[in-house]
Amino acid sequence: MLNSAAGRPVVGMVGGGQLARMTHQAAIDFGIDLVVLARSERDAAVRAGCRAIFGEPDDPSALAELASQCDVITFDHEHVPVELAIELAQAGHLVYPSGTALKAAQDKLHARKIFQGAGFPVPAFRSLDADIPTEIERFGKSHDWPVVLKLRTGGYDGRGVAVLPSAIAIDDAITRLGPGALMVEAHVPIAQELAIVGIRRPSGQWAAYPPVGTLQVDGICNEAVMPAPVPPSVASAAETLAKSLAEHINAVGIFVVELFVTTMGDLVINEIALRPHNSGHATIEAATTSQFHNHIRAVLDWPLGDTSLRVPAAAMVNILGGAGDPREHLATALAVKGASLHLYGKDAAPGRKLGHVTAVGPTVEQALEVARQAAMALSGKMN
Amino acid sequence: MLNSAAGRPVVGMVGGGQLARMTHQAAIDFGIDLVVLARSERDAAVRAGCRAIFGEPDDPSALAELASQCDVITFDHEHVPVELAIELAQAGHLVYPSGTALKAAQDKLHARKIFQGAGFPVPAFRSLDADIPTEIERFGKSHDWPVVLKLRTGGYDGRGVAVLPSAIAIDDAITRLGPGALMVEAHVPIAQELAIVGIRRPSGQWAAYPPVGTLQVDGICNEAVMPAPVPPSVASAAETLAKSLAEHINAVGIFVVELFVTTMGDLVINEIALRPHNSGHATIEAATTSQFHNHIRAVLDWPLGDTSLRVPAAAMVNILGGAGDPREHLATALAVKGASLHLYGKDAAPGRKLGHVTAVGPTVEQALEVARQAAMALSGKMN
Repeated sequence: MLNSAAGRPVVGMVGGGQLARMTHQAAIDFGIDLVVLARSERDAAVRAGCRAIFGEPDDPSALAELASQCDVITFDHEHVPVELAIELAQAGHLVYPSGTALKAAQDKLHARKIFQGAGFPVPAFRSLDADIPTEIERFGKSHDWPVVLKLRTGGYDGRGVAVLPSAIAIDDAITRLGPGALMVEAHVPIAQELAIVGIRRPSGQWAAYPPVGTLQVDGICNEAVMPAPVPPSVASAAETLAKSLAEHINAVGIFVVELFVTTMGDLVINEIALRPHNSGHATIEAATTSQFHNHIRAVLDWPLGDTSLRVPAAAMVNILGGAGDPREHLATALAVKGASLHLYGKDAAPGRKLGHVTAVGPTVEQALEVARQAAMALSGKMN
Repeated sequence: MLNSAAGRPVVGMVGGGQLARMTHQAAIDFGIDLVVLARSERDAAVRAGCRAIFGEPDDPSALAELASQCDVITFDHEHVPVELAIELAQAGHLVYPSGTALKAAQDKLHARKIFQGAGFPVPAFRSLDADIPTEIERFGKSHDWPVVLKLRTGGYDGRGVAVLPSAIAIDDAITRLGPGALMVEAHVPIAQELAIVGIRRPSGQWAAYPPVGTLQVDGICNEAVMPAPVPPSVASAAETLAKSLAEHINAVGIFVVELFVTTMGDLVINEIALRPHNSGHATIEAATTSQFHNHIRAVLDWPLGDTSLRVPAAAMVNILGGAGDPREHLATALAVKGASLHLYGKDAAPGRKLGHVTAVGPTVEQALEVARQAAMALSGKMN
């Protein structure tokens, strides 16, 4: 260990959002320190009392400062330039996941290419470099409309993605997505969306939670249930796929793959993440070990914790910023029996993820009912 | 609210130990701030990033400073002079529990008197004011030996208590207990020890967790299981007793009564606490709402959270300081499947509570087995 006494490693995390905030809560259980590279005092993790240094995630000197204070560097988002992550590792710092692995979560075209190259199921796709409207139209003709236009990098929570019903929508979509390299994909006929939340140690030890069923609204993961209502064969195929993907890119820490189950029953890779993920939040209440505890365990190369559920089922509903601050409705939401609230301490803004609610229960339906009730209360719709 | 925006109250807690540390983790979930009155930067809550002011719990100016920063004052220990707690309330601050209620947790003689006066079951006891050795001997003769000699205030975790097998032990015991007012009690023939962890709101709303079975070693709560292995009639009588006691002293927040089940099957009050308590730690993993979340809810007069267990059974084992720092053995302990570790970040010292381990399972025996294994690993006995 570089910076700390035996048994008391310091974990550095680039980004100070809600994922870092919940990782901080987990670090407290281990009696160790998390230190985040945050943008400001207002960041969710900093408001929770997490140690912080301030700077931008693409500033080499801020990253070096973080590295000097910790034993391992990890991430709560994907916005660190790959080359800077690689340089940190070359300078002798432990960086998990590595810059190379991170690239697959940053650049959607790169991910599609390496996954397709290794035989993993991805939608048909094409890079768009020149003569873009024509290329999209040609792609639409050969793969059928609708097609999906995407920014290769920087998109999240539905930003950076446009579904084009026909060629007429091309120019508008390009304008709306704004500057940045583009790619186009075939639209997958989706029956269901799944996420596998897994964890991998540097040594290769792997564990995964039961599959999560996700419900996206406008591209934002809004609701998630565990275990996902899928046949055991689908669950097992999804888990095998996730493990192979994680190995292929040498992921360390939490590794998440969001999957489409097509109307034909096939699995197709949507996106991946190499950090704790919204779809895994219910692990706090529902699993023996939460994804945040397991992320810390993995990046410190500690034995992974038990990923089995200690309850039959769980559901999670996001709290998105709307009319006001959800904390104004806290007392109403707290009266919903069985709901566990997590508010991120962030300033309210429309569409911003301000918190989530989890409930456990005998079935995912019952858990979802409770979580939705509390979420509705927090949005002020029950007052 | 005095100090804060709507829905964002600040909770002040006197004391910065592990109870404040875990209350801080719970406050993060509510998106609110806890601020503690701590002794030093080394205090467990401060190390976890909790906001803190520094001072002694019997310093009026430190308490006033705490009060100026928060909307309600509560406690992680009983060492605030009652009159100072009362003065804070008279100055217009919300203090939960009140100084008057707190007195019953501070002064064992006072507690015995008010509980006996109200008809609650307590052991025979006598105040010792003058001619102490003679009084103890007389008490021993009339109530049979052994008797229990206690410091009226300041004792905890087995400190301040001596069991006297006969009159010969009197002088030694008085010397060993040191300065402070004394009392003597009849020794209760104990079949079993129970704790009821309940919560009470200012309005009187009450909830209780299933009874906890505690195993004390040298007066320190070492192990606890939920639910306690007692017949439903005993559980129900204990819960009724706890609720009545809490009402009698007008407790607010977590209220704990430790009970003896005598060899005759009767319940006798041992001690009470008006704060989150060691016997309730397993509520973090085992109950829908932890005692720390419920303490915050109660002192803010928010609806209490569901106290039912979401698993069949749970067990908790304390990590006491011994030969080294338990964090040196973290990797070994983390390999024990199903154990949830909580380390308090405190410097190791013999006998000091440095953490605890919780496990859940189908039976308390199976949960206890897992928790003991991890605790043993943390003590270095598995390396």
